Amino acid sequence: MSKQVFNCLVAQSGGPTTAINASLAGVIKAARDCEEIGTIYGAINGIQGVLSRNIVDIETLLGTDDKSIEMLKISPSMYLGSCRYKLEDVETAINTLIPEYERIDDYTCIFNILHEYDIKYFFYIGGNDSMDTVKKLGAYGKSIDSDVRFIGIPKTIDNDLPITDHTPGYGSAARYIATSMLEMAYDTSIYSTKSVLIVEIMGRDAGWLTAASSLARTEFSDAPHLIYLPERNFSDAQFLSDLREKMKDRDHVIIAVSEGIHYQDGTYVSAAGAVKDQFGHAMLSGAGKYLANLVHKKIGCKVRAVELNVLQRCAAHMSSLTDLDESFQLGSKAVEVALSGKSELMTTVIREKTKDGSYAVSYGTCDVKKVANQEKKVPDKWINDAGNDVEKEFLEYARPLIQGEPVISYKDGLPTYLSVRHLGV
Amino acid sequence: MSKQVFNCLVAQSGGPTTAINASLAGVIKAARDCEEIGTIYGAINGIQGVLSRNIVDIETLLGTDDKSIEMLKISPSMYLGSCRYKLEDVETAINTLIPEYERIDDYTCIFNILHEYDIKYFFYIGGNDSMDTVKKLGAYGKSIDSDVRFIGIPKTIDNDLPITDHTPGYGSAARYIATSMLEMAYDTSIYSTKSVLIVEIMGRDAGWLTAASSLARTEFSDAPHLIYLPERNFSDAQFLSDLREKMKDRDHVIIAVSEGIHYQDGTYVSAAGAVKDQFGHAMLSGAGKYLANLVHKKIGCKVRAVELNVLQRCAAHMSSLTDLDESFQLGSKAVEVALSGKSELMTTVIREKTKDGSYAVSYGTCDVKKVANQEKKVPDKWINDAGNDVEKEFLEYARPLIQGEPVISYKDGLPTYLSVRHLGV
Repeated sequence: MSKQVFNCLVAQSGGPTTAINASLAGVIKAARDCEEIGTIYGAINGIQGVLSRNIVDIETLLGTDDKSIEMLKISPSMYLGSCRYKLEDVETAINTLIPEYERIDDYTCIFNILHEYDIKYFFYIGGNDSMDTVKKLGAYGKSIDSDVRFIGIPKTIDNDLPITDHTPGYGSAARYIATSMLEMAYDTSIYSTKSVLIVEIMGRDAGWLTAASSLARTEFSDAPHLIYLPERNFSDAQFLSDLREKMKDRDHVIIAVSEGIHYQDGTYVSAAGAVKDQFGHAMLSGAGKYLANLVHKKIGCKVRAVELNVLQRCAAHMSSLTDLDESFQLGSKAVEVALSGKSELMTTVIREKTKDGSYAVSYGTCDVKKVANQEKKVPDKWINDAGNDVEKEFLEYARPLIQGEPVISYKDGLPTYLSVRHLGV
Repeated sequence: MSKQVFNCLVAQSGGPTTAINASLAGVIKAARDCEEIGTIYGAINGIQGVLSRNIVDIETLLGTDDKSIEMLKISPSMYLGSCRYKLEDVETAINTLIPEYERIDDYTCIFNILHEYDIKYFFYIGGNDSMDTVKKLGAYGKSIDSDVRFIGIPKTIDNDLPITDHTPGYGSAARYIATSMLEMAYDTSIYSTKSVLIVEIMGRDAGWLTAASSLARTEFSDAPHLIYLPERNFSDAQFLSDLREKMKDRDHVIIAVSEGIHYQDGTYVSAAGAVKDQFGHAMLSGAGKYLANLVHKKIGCKVRAVELNVLQRCAAHMSSLTDLDESFQLGSKAVEVALSGKSELMTTVIREKTKDGSYAVSYGTCDVKKVANQEKKVPDKWINDAGNDVEKEFLEYARPLIQGEPVISYKDGLPTYLSVRHLGV
């Protein structure tokens, strides 16, 4: 007896990473190779695309050859677009007294559409907010005896999801940050006058990205010389004292700071740097700019602040191949898990203990409820006592994640990626 | 009769580019292959290194194998360090009445040292300020009947030197800018809400680098949608009007602005954005940040400012191979020119007119006096009438300069460059 065929739907949500399309590629490849899945649908702009029926047949859009899967794997941004949409409270929807045929809540709409498209497998690639969506859809589905299976696939450059050893997207962002830090260390070396460079890196509450700047240290450079994460309270006085100490040994001091560094009372350093424009309106200057200003005033040497900004999440030419490969596998794993009958899970990376200490991973799952709205910070013991550097345990953890270079082809000097014209670029 | 052997000295000056070491590699390779040159000396930190006798035997430092020449060619920063030192007025030095044995001016010191090291060929790699140094040394040399030959080799990411078709370093910076612009265009595509991204690019007086952002336009993206160069006066009102017009057609507008854009009265836009910190001290916010603030207030949509900052001059992993090859040739050419007995020249790139319109160059020289302290701007006819974009003539000029990818080797995920530990990094 042949198995019954159902369709699947996949969508992406939250902020971009250069590896999120690799997970999408993994879902598509596994779904394509599987007899029990018919059409592979994609919702444009996440769950909002489901609600607005902005649903596409992915193979029509992308093509069916393996080359397009390979191109998708290395392309930045989010092929299906994104959203930041929080589904309404699921308990309220479940316990509503409104009769079924009169309901117009998010859940009723979504499940009607899933039913209409004959969708049994729902894959959502995103961070902790997106896992909240998976959790709620799963809970609502149960309440109406739906057999749609909801599987989350992690992604976030911030690396702040619990349970999974690390998150897809982090390794690539870390590789970009470390490479840029190394190149900036070369850049600062040329003059004989004293200088300070402050590099502001993303990460509001968790310092994983800023810590990754330490991977830039090679036989060629010790930069960054100071690292400040949001896991520890920041103090202007201690910072100036740390810096003065470093300046005794070297002409050029390079400092990595997280955008989220804050004082003991919780105030962000970037807020301390709030300035007023000529109309008297408050303007946030960023932690790096604030500290550069402080160094200029209190120490008086040449100082510059650099903000890596969005490039750390979109510079796909610098992606980590390890990251892309793992992200792809997490997508494929999600299809396998859904077909096995499970739901309300997120796929995870598990770091294996190997005899020779080499890096190896396997893929597992965890209850999506344990991830939704949770946050994983850099362990306290991986930060030095002075709170201005990371310990070698961090380097051992992070170094394997930035290994390997994807094969990018270039045309007219520019990397060639898959078109996102369908998003209206 | 065998030819007499003399030594040569090479130094680098001004701001870094990712191609300046390729010119150094070209000098070293040509000098090494030439019987008339003995020791290849390098001055650390430009002309200041000569004055302070910080002079190294380059082959001792670098090694003598071709591999190190290849590594030097692709490495960022300046292998010999840099300086920003203006030699004292040469006419004053020439016309001094102080007896020769009592003179302690820059020129007396420099020529004594050159004599002591038996140096007959002096190569200086730099921009228009550095060519001023070459010009002055040449003039002083003539006045004392010195037979030392002074040859300049151009470099500057700004592309603002006259006579040479373009400058070494520009193509690589342009490639980095175009690639980053393309990747940021992908990044902005993901949300369905309206957004504006303002990218601030280097170039205080000439808009070559900002214009290069137009090279990002491919079949995948039209970004940037507006481009503002310092060659035209800027107006906040016209900017807002241009932007509102673009926002009618598209959700995401990406704008490239030069750091040097200014109003009709000459005031920099970045100065208009001067803000006061909590101590009441003035802080420059940058043109991009100022405009982002303006858009936020006047249009009210999501807006972000990104400053490419030093990465555009040091991201060697994104160098243009065309740029590196040409920079190397300009270094070799300088040695050829010096050996032919000439002095006070700068080597130049000449774009050939080919039958099929393909890109080809040859190398020439020009009088260094025609370059020193001069500046070449983007031609007015290459900027559109509205002053918010470039014309296709610019694209035809610039596109060949970003072609080709250097072979970079990676270790632990990071590019491997030649060490600059000797500069005290």
